[in-house]
Formats: sequence, C-alpha cells, structure tokens
Amino acid sequence: MSVTFAKGFSAAGVNADISSNKAKSDLALVVNNGPLDAAAGVFTTNRFCAAPVQWSRKAVSDGHVKAVVLNSGGANACTGAEGLKQSEATAVKVAQVLGGEHPVEINDIAVCSTGLIGELLPLDNVLVGVDKAYGALSDNVQAGIDAATAIMTTDTKPKMVKLEGSSYRVGGMVKGSGMIAPQLATMLCVITTDAVVESSQLQAVLASATDKSFNRIDVDGCMSTNDTVLLLASGASDVTPNPQEFAELIHEACASLARQIIGDGEGSSHDIKVTVSGAETEDAALACARAVAGSNLLKCAISGNDPNWGRIVSSLGTVPVGVAAYDSQKVTVDINGVRVYEHGGAGVDRSQVKMEAREVGIDIDLNNGAKTATVWTDDLTHEYVHINADYES
Amino acid sequence: MSVTFAKGFSAAGVNADISSNKAKSDLALVVNNGPLDAAAGVFTTNRFCAAPVQWSRKAVSDGHVKAVVLNSGGANACTGAEGLKQSEATAVKVAQVLGGEHPVEINDIAVCSTGLIGELLPLDNVLVGVDKAYGALSDNVQAGIDAATAIMTTDTKPKMVKLEGSSYRVGGMVKGSGMIAPQLATMLCVITTDAVVESSQLQAVLASATDKSFNRIDVDGCMSTNDTVLLLASGASDVTPNPQEFAELIHEACASLARQIIGDGEGSSHDIKVTVSGAETEDAALACARAVAGSNLLKCAISGNDPNWGRIVSSLGTVPVGVAAYDSQKVTVDINGVRVYEHGGAGVDRSQVKMEAREVGIDIDLNNGAKTATVWTDDLTHEYVHINADYES
Repeated sequence: MSVTFAKGFSAAGVNADISSNKAKSDLALVVNNGPLDAAAGVFTTNRFCAAPVQWSRKAVSDGHVKAVVLNSGGANACTGAEGLKQSEATAVKVAQVLGGEHPVEINDIAVCSTGLIGELLPLDNVLVGVDKAYGALSDNVQAGIDAATAIMTTDTKPKMVKLEGSSYRVGGMVKGSGMIAPQLATMLCVITTDAVVESSQLQAVLASATDKSFNRIDVDGCMSTNDTVLLLASGASDVTPNPQEFAELIHEACASLARQIIGDGEGSSHDIKVTVSGAETEDAALACARAVAGSNLLKCAISGNDPNWGRIVSSLGTVPVGVAAYDSQKVTVDINGVRVYEHGGAGVDRSQVKMEAREVGIDIDLNNGAKTATVWTDDLTHEYVHINADYES
Repeated sequence: MSVTFAKGFSAAGVNADISSNKAKSDLALVVNNGPLDAAAGVFTTNRFCAAPVQWSRKAVSDGHVKAVVLNSGGANACTGAEGLKQSEATAVKVAQVLGGEHPVEINDIAVCSTGLIGELLPLDNVLVGVDKAYGALSDNVQAGIDAATAIMTTDTKPKMVKLEGSSYRVGGMVKGSGMIAPQLATMLCVITTDAVVESSQLQAVLASATDKSFNRIDVDGCMSTNDTVLLLASGASDVTPNPQEFAELIHEACASLARQIIGDGEGSSHDIKVTVSGAETEDAALACARAVAGSNLLKCAISGNDPNWGRIVSSLGTVPVGVAAYDSQKVTVDINGVRVYEHGGAGVDRSQVKMEAREVGIDIDLNNGAKTATVWTDDLTHEYVHINADYES
C-alpha cells in the first residue's frame, strides 16, 4: 500500500535501466498533490554523505517538498562536484515534468539514491526514467507497491506500512537490508500523511520517531552515506490531528518499517531483539544494548542456534563504567525467556533455550535503575558474507 | 623457541584432558628459575573479567611471579565464587609442586585460562595436569614450543617470538585468533627475558608495548573476558639492559606476536593493515583506523578481493568531527599503493589494485596534521562464520 495510502499522493516505480540488474525497476517517484506540501527530513550523519543527501537536506530545510525522486542501482556518493550536478539535474527534470501550468521550484524536489558508492549515475537513463515515472503516476495501491519495489537493492521484498489515525492516514515505504547501523541505516524511507500538519511539527515528530526506531536497529554496524527519511504531509484529509496521536502514529510507522528491515537483514536467519532494563538512564541502557547487538561473535552463535550467553556478557563488559553503571554480579540475562545468567554465573542450562523461532529475545536486567532501551539486530550468517564478499560490484 | 629462549626459564605443555579435543595438549607451565622473579602484567578491561584474571591481577600486583600456569579448553569466566576457588586451587597446586625445600607463595603463581565462557574447569584434571607438566619441565627449545602449543584454541599454529638484546634475550608466546579487539584480544601471552629489570620498569615497558601492539589489532571487534599479557624477568643473563633498547625489544616482541595473531585470524584470507596519517593527533588517527578496521562490510569486500574504497570512506565518515578533524574533500585513500580516492571522489580505477597477496595495505591520509596510527585486522570470511556459528560448544 505504501505511500499512496495517504490521500493526496501519487507514486510510480519504473525500470529506468540504472541498476546492473536489467530486469529490476530502479526509479521511483512520489508526488505530493497537496493542498499542503509540508515536509521534514532526517539524514545520515556520515561525513562522506552522498550528493543526493546534500541536495535533499537543503531542499527540505525550508519545510516544503512537492516530490521525491528515488533511484536504486547507484548511490551517487563520493562523486564530487559532478555527482552534485547529477542530483540537481534530476531535481530540475522532475520540477519540469511536474510543472506544467504551475511551475515547481527545483528546491521543492528531494532526491534519494542507493547503491554502490563512488560511481556516477547513468544520468540520461535517470532523466528518461523520470519521464516514464511521471507517465505512470497513480494514487492507487499498485503504484505505492511499485515505488517501494523500485527502491529495493539487496532487499528481498518491498517494505511498506499503512496506519489509520482519526480520519487521516499515514503510509510509508522503506528500503534497506545491509549497512544498517546506529544513526540510521542504508535506507531510504518516505512516509506520507494526509493530515494537516506544519513542517516544524513534522520535523519534531520525525526526529523523535527516527531516534527510537531506525536509530535502534543494527544489521552490521555500518552507517551509510545515503540514509534519508522523509515525512510529507498533503493535508488532503482536511483533518488536524491530535498531536500526541499523530506522534504515536509516526513512531509506529517508523518502528514497523525498521522492524521490516531487520526481518529482511542481509542473509539473516534470526531477528535479535536486545532489551536492556534496570539502567540508571536510557542512554546507559542504549549503550549496553548496542554493545551486545554489535557483537559479531554473538551474531554468529545465534546463527548457529546457540544461546551463547558468554558472548552476551563479554560484550556487555566492554561498556565503560562511566557510560553505564552496574554490578556484574547483579546482572541477569534471559534468552527467549530462560534465565541463563545470574549471580555472576550460569543460571538455567542453556540447552533449555528454544532457538527454532526466527525472533530471538535477549533480555538483560542491569538491576541498577528503572530505564530501558531496545536495539534490534540480525544474526551473522554465511549468506551475509556471501552477499557482501561475492557480490558483483 | 618461545619462552625458553631467555635463560632462567623452563616450560612444559601437556595433555591434561581439559579440552573437549581429547587429542590436544591443553595445559602449559612456565617457571622462572631466577635469580630474579620480577613480573608485570596487563589485563582485559572487560567488566566480566574471568576468575583467573582476577587472581593473576592480584598475584602480579606486587611485582613478583615465580610461575604461570595456563590452560586452554575452558575460560573459567562467569563462574562465580566457585571459579575463583578453582583458580586459587590451581595456584596452590603449582606452588606445592614447585616448593620442595624452598616454599613458594601461592601469590607468586599467575593463572591463565582460555576457552568457553560460563563453565567450570574439570579441576581434578587440571591438578593432575600440573603434576604432569612439572615432570615435563625443561629449558630446551621443544619445551617452549610445547607450552605455546598447549595454549592454542582455534589457533592453527603456535605463535612464538625470540629476540636478542645486547647479551640478553627475550622470548615469548601468545595464543589468540578470535574475539580479538581494541583493548587486548582473546589472548594469553607470556613474554620472558633474562635481563635484569625491576618490576616497575617491566610494567611501564609492557603497558606501552601492549598499547601499541595488542591494542591495535582487531579480528572481530570482540573483547574477551580473559586477556592477559605477562612479562617475566629472570635476571639470569646478569645484564642490566639499556632501558631504551629493552623497551624497543619488548615492543618488537609484542608487535611480532600481535602480527602473528592477525596472520592466524579465524578463517581469515587477508591480513589488513589500516594506516591513517596526516592526523592532528595520534588519538584521532587511531580512532579513524579503528573505525575502518572494524567495518564488517569492508572486511567482507576484502575477502572477496574487492578493493571497495566506498566502504572505507563510509566507515571513516562515521568518526565524529570532535574525535578527528578532517575535510572529506582532502582525504586520500590508497589500497596496496593505488590511489583509489581523492578530491572527494574516485581516483585510479580500483580494477588496477592487485589483491592476490594475503596482506592488504590501506593507507588513508587525512591531510590535516602529522600524526599516524596503524590498526591491523582480518577479512571476514565464510570460514569465520563457520568457526563461530557451527562450532561444538
């Protein structure tokens, strides 16, 4: 259903011959038909951020976005001045096809790219693709699915969300399956709503929702140059939402999409939910959860269906005292509900832990406070290495 | 040659039936026959440090160690009060067999263990093994090799070093091949010297050497609960070394052993040397080198023989501005001597980079200062996942 679930949006996904996979659609267009064109964005903090990120950050900064053009098949990152020209040329083209009688500012067009770093896009193909996508624009269900499909890279399925508020809607799509780490992921995400919301409110809501969703998943500890999350409001429902409800809905949309990324992590066979409770502060809980979720050794053990709690506590033990206070003798660790570590040593024998299900729950209680944080990750499998070592570059 | 290269030391390695691999030797004993018994130690900073680490840290703290007993086949980590009793009982046994007419303090016996976390050792086997090792003690070459072999876990070969100073010697052994990360590695290391050096000088020299060797290798980003580096001086050469020369020799011994760990990293097919130069401070250079060396995506690419510089700069880009200042447009990246990134984009086509050799050199120049740091890592291969997912636990 994706981005067209919210009223006031049309979308398309087409094959523009950008990706080396000739059979795959690789260009998506999402257009906000209004009446509002309020927008917010959150971007990678990577210092080698890609040309489209530099372009879109500027485009979104005034709170107005009329359309987003997204491509897979190339990141347009580390491509210098020429790369920036490509992002601009793409925006110019979109503004031109959308303009007709009512000119559209190029500064109201956001551009997103994903794929290999360091190579320019086949710009002619992109521009022809924009024409093709414009011709395919529709506000129906399939158009939303087409857009979500066109932005996929190593994703094995399109990732979409639709949620209903009180007489308004939220829709969204995301791509991402590797290079997913703290502070966004290799992900492009567009969330749409037909609620009447100003851009400043959108920005606050999106920043908070992103912080607790996309920033708490970690497939492989690698932060991308291209991460972008956009939130667009058309106002087409004519409903001004209850702020609290709206914030919760956007958070739910981000959480659902983030969860879908983990569920489709490159080569993964388990989704691992690491929850740290009993911390003095949420930051302390988060630091502990990130340390555990980032352990290659643990991720390998889980892929081998071994509830190896030694690899959990040894990761937890690397968090400096100044970051998270706890007494290692008072910490408890449960895996899938079985208390495998307590009183400074083994608890229930780990052979009692059932590991068949895809989802694995690791619950760590620091017993040192009341704060909690959760980080999601994937296991580390042969298939992950295969995807990232034996890929065609 | 290992620890018996320095005069005044005897050693042994025996099969004490501790390891699940029945065919493997798993207990080593290193005895300092004096006249000195000066010692220094550096230990894991992991907050779940193992019982033998707790024991040995205390034993070394007074600057005297007469013997070190080491076992593979079990880490005796997260084993509570019972685990501490096991380490003490092992020390008591060693003191007893060594004592004879001249009683040895149990506090002069260091204990090291490596293997699976969370299970107690088969203590009876350990104690019988100590007798067996005592009977096998010798100061010959083979005894040093036997000791280095007995401490191996997933290591594929014993790792040893021998160096000659001005009329004194330095020998050493190390084990370690996975769970190797910043701030030591899953490694046990014993370095011996027959120079006449006091424990305070040994400690200063060892801390500095460790910081620039073992603390700059990273196989998988995982810090162990059991890491221990010991430096023992027998004074048997009767030579008081030039302090500068001695420090350099100990650094060289640590660097050689650290390099051997990388060369034997679990399942690795490439040793990767990441050097960051042109930094304002050494800490800044080190933070950048660690970020690059820690990238799973890069490590996978290298295992696939792809000089994927995009994964280098995207990792570099995650280092916060406050930690390392640089302008991404001025950074250059060379892989095996080929400048693949400069002026904010692609340099020489990466197809020109030769990737056949085991060693891969990544040289990053921040062009923002004069400081340099190097971190070694391994590539991430199918075999790494196999070892750490499909192991017998």
